Amino acid sequence: MGMTMSQKILAAHAGLDFVAPGQLIMAKLDMVLGNDITSPVAINEFNAYGFDRVFSKDKISLVLDHFVPNKDIKAATQSKQTREFAKQYDITHFYDAGRMGIEHALLPEQGIVKAGDLIVGADSHTCTYGALGAFSTGVGSTDMAAAMATGELWFKVPSAIKFNLTGTLRPYVSGKDVILHIIGKIGVDGALYQSMEFTGDGVASLSMDDRLCISNMAIEAGAKNGIFPVDDITRAYMDGRVKEPYTVFEADEDAVYEAEYTIDLSEIDHTVAFPHLPENARTKNEWGTLPIDQVVIGSCTNGRFSDLAAAAEILKGKKIADHIRCIVIPATQQIYKDAMKAGFLEIFIDAGCVVSTPTCGPCLGGYMGILAEGERCVATTNRNFVGRMGHPKSEVYLASPQVAAASAITGRLSAPEEVMN
Amino acid sequence: MGMTMSQKILAAHAGLDFVAPGQLIMAKLDMVLGNDITSPVAINEFNAYGFDRVFSKDKISLVLDHFVPNKDIKAATQSKQTREFAKQYDITHFYDAGRMGIEHALLPEQGIVKAGDLIVGADSHTCTYGALGAFSTGVGSTDMAAAMATGELWFKVPSAIKFNLTGTLRPYVSGKDVILHIIGKIGVDGALYQSMEFTGDGVASLSMDDRLCISNMAIEAGAKNGIFPVDDITRAYMDGRVKEPYTVFEADEDAVYEAEYTIDLSEIDHTVAFPHLPENARTKNEWGTLPIDQVVIGSCTNGRFSDLAAAAEILKGKKIADHIRCIVIPATQQIYKDAMKAGFLEIFIDAGCVVSTPTCGPCLGGYMGILAEGERCVATTNRNFVGRMGHPKSEVYLASPQVAAASAITGRLSAPEEVMN
Repeated sequence: MGMTMSQKILAAHAGLDFVAPGQLIMAKLDMVLGNDITSPVAINEFNAYGFDRVFSKDKISLVLDHFVPNKDIKAATQSKQTREFAKQYDITHFYDAGRMGIEHALLPEQGIVKAGDLIVGADSHTCTYGALGAFSTGVGSTDMAAAMATGELWFKVPSAIKFNLTGTLRPYVSGKDVILHIIGKIGVDGALYQSMEFTGDGVASLSMDDRLCISNMAIEAGAKNGIFPVDDITRAYMDGRVKEPYTVFEADEDAVYEAEYTIDLSEIDHTVAFPHLPENARTKNEWGTLPIDQVVIGSCTNGRFSDLAAAAEILKGKKIADHIRCIVIPATQQIYKDAMKAGFLEIFIDAGCVVSTPTCGPCLGGYMGILAEGERCVATTNRNFVGRMGHPKSEVYLASPQVAAASAITGRLSAPEEVMN
Repeated sequence: MGMTMSQKILAAHAGLDFVAPGQLIMAKLDMVLGNDITSPVAINEFNAYGFDRVFSKDKISLVLDHFVPNKDIKAATQSKQTREFAKQYDITHFYDAGRMGIEHALLPEQGIVKAGDLIVGADSHTCTYGALGAFSTGVGSTDMAAAMATGELWFKVPSAIKFNLTGTLRPYVSGKDVILHIIGKIGVDGALYQSMEFTGDGVASLSMDDRLCISNMAIEAGAKNGIFPVDDITRAYMDGRVKEPYTVFEADEDAVYEAEYTIDLSEIDHTVAFPHLPENARTKNEWGTLPIDQVVIGSCTNGRFSDLAAAAEILKGKKIADHIRCIVIPATQQIYKDAMKAGFLEIFIDAGCVVSTPTCGPCLGGYMGILAEGERCVATTNRNFVGRMGHPKSEVYLASPQVAAASAITGRLSAPEEVMN
């Protein structure tokens, strides 16, 4: 019996030749991540355990991104505590407000994570880095504390589901539609504690940003991780970013999967997750007429350069509807600069949008676009739980940047074709 | 006995030939302003009085700027209420998130206020428009409610203090230093319920942005208003912005002033207001070594184009100190765009700064840069009261954009000359 790609990474990091699903292993970590919300909890645990050193100052990333620039005194206190810890232990990858980006956009962009790595982060969307061919997953703050001290963590080896991707995406359809389609198909617990392993001819047609978006939302199907094979696109992305050697793992030909799906990318239509679960996926003929109040384009899911490019293409020379607030949030300072140079930010402002500094802000109801009672938002974020973006009686519709931009123009949930000729 | 400039504007709007200090008058208003914090209170009063019409849909400005993009559910609810009122009464000058700017930068920029106007706003810094030769002052939300319905309001005619400005400012010294110098001289109640009337040869050397900054902070000396004569600079500024005819008022030669000061602009040094009052003005030889944590460049006081230009000149090609968060907030979308095109935003980001969408945010402890316990901020804002920007044990130092930018680079309160050769 062979191993899946995820299992092979775990085995290598546990110093074992073979691991089987369900097996408990201790594995060495390549990177431990925390943000301004989770790090303070981990730091308190770290101190309570009496730890007085970190396993590696270069293998810990502390990113202030959720509620910075500080949204209130509590956020200021959390940032301060994390900043002081980073200083005390001379953490190489500490990113404060303004030096930052959203963690899951920043780490791949800066080459801090790479193919073959075993990465944990005290943030559920840490699964994003699977796009690079890494095993990457979210952990609790207590695990983060232990991981920072020891550089190791236990794992229960996950079984896997295989997603055979074929064909290529239609115009204005992107990675977000793919993952919403899949979650709609298998449900929010469809891959519970399993690896989602993406493979097939269709992978080559997906950009790195598409893959990062897809892996990012693996957790929304309950998965332990979501992983892509390493190909020329992965290598080209890591080229010049990743300074250290990386290892390419491949699933064995006789790897065992719990289930297997074939997804024809060319058949995927614009897909939106209706309230209040990511599995409530509906394609555009099921949308009906749905007036909205706000649009958010950004987040660790869809705040990358190609996401802003897609939104800018649709918004160029147009105005958003009078009653709409449209908030665009580049995910990192580099993306912000690149989008500025490409003219996207000017397009957004001319259209009537807000351009925010990088922050998770509205995605988790933090700030920068909170909804009032009864308000509806089309967002490129990753969760649409009750009250996720504000009032318990507000609604979030998860969508691609293309759908979000089109909806901002019409003032109702709309497909890009409605506004593009 | 003649009238001051302020008195002449009040007399004209009351339909009187003459008014005297202390006299109670009823006067017609040219503009009534509210923001997202004060408008909901005014709207509740408006409704409670049973008003069902506004005196003029074109003479009311409702600007969402303090806590937008909505920082929390309460802010979202306030914005929603104001938005609905604006829609109900078809308010011409309603500015939502993204269409906005900070009220006191936006109204002059868009030509909504002009020389000779009588303007009230439910915001204490409404006195800003005195820079255009208008009588402009802050009122409570109840007055705003009555003003929106009737277009009139009662005033007690203020007496005045005359500030004779002579000479010209030294390099890297700006309007902010002038007004902090004056407040330091006369105190936070030095002009209580009086007009601060600026005049003299020195006025011609002050840019419109300098004047807007000086008038903006008249309230910090307790003044009812702060006003500048209308000259070529004023006319040039209004040209192309102001669509309607305006009236130029001048103080009578025999106007009576309670006090008179002569301020030689060439003698004004970099001036910073230490905690916790704007009157605690100290020039740079009195600063000592003062490590700081944060810098804020923005607000209705100093978020205009020339403020960002001054900061960019100092930050160009430099990095802010490692431990500093520097938050730059263009005051309007137009300023944001202009600063982007001029290359300032790239300079800020390359230096390590946050560039925020226009908002009052941190100035009044709203969001976007709140301070933790013990933290110090050098800010170009207008108030440094206890807890103004966050924790009651944080400190705010009011400064010019030039001093703020220099301080961001050194990580301590610094004059521009320290970093410029």
